[in-house]
Amino acid sequence: MKIYFAGSIRGGREDAALYLQIIEYLKSFGEVLTEHIGDQKLTDLGDDGPTDRYIHDRDLEWLQSADVLVAEVTTVSMGVGYEIGRAVESGKKVLCLFRPESGKNLSAMIAGCPDLELVKYRNLNEAKAAIAGFLEK
Amino acid sequence: MKIYFAGSIRGGREDAALYLQIIEYLKSFGEVLTEHIGDQKLTDLGDDGPTDRYIHDRDLEWLQSADVLVAEVTTVSMGVGYEIGRAVESGKKVLCLFRPESGKNLSAMIAGCPDLELVKYRNLNEAKAAIAGFLEK
Repeated sequence: MKIYFAGSIRGGREDAALYLQIIEYLKSFGEVLTEHIGDQKLTDLGDDGPTDRYIHDRDLEWLQSADVLVAEVTTVSMGVGYEIGRAVESGKKVLCLFRPESGKNLSAMIAGCPDLELVKYRNLNEAKAAIAGFLEK
Repeated sequence: MKIYFAGSIRGGREDAALYLQIIEYLKSFGEVLTEHIGDQKLTDLGDDGPTDRYIHDRDLEWLQSADVLVAEVTTVSMGVGYEIGRAVESGKKVLCLFRPESGKNLSAMIAGCPDLELVKYRNLNEAKAAIAGFLEK
């Protein structure tokens, strides 16, 4: 299974350590195409490619080749929203993970979308349970 | 012409007054389906509908019926990213307006997307010129 993991880069890197833990768990189910999202050396300048066009086209190709999209949506990110929109529009399976305890407001376009699975969680163990339930369906 | 204007709600309302000015200008070209985005009484709680599902389905129907999407992308917003992703994936015409002077980082997924038009601007007059150029094509 090919898994596209989406998390905030330029929207803010405060959850980068958590992304890494989620990615490590996702690797027990298949190939994670976007391992760099968990790289703690990657800052919110988002310099993970030579140009924005290069980053976009590389990530879009990965997204299109993925079987599923798993997105951590607590940190507000335009890019994660874009990826979810493209994945939903093209009929891909999408899991969104959100931590209400962050105090952040989740967009109604994600919270109210019937074509994705949204799981609210508190800690890594709950995130893992949500991922297992989703991927083993 | 039916125009879908996208701007941040739950991502933050600091540009709400600007959204209103952009919407007023867009109305000289056609019908703006999302006039409430410029409503300064609408806060980042985003209570512009009874439920998230209602808001999502209403906004998606508007987006699907629109001829063009015009998005102000300076304030980071998951919902705006989602709308851009769905619009691009479905082949709709998209204009994104960004103010570099805000000091914010624009996502590479927007800045590097070849299937939308991105215009960087400094003030309302420059935004108007970008809109006119885009809609009169």
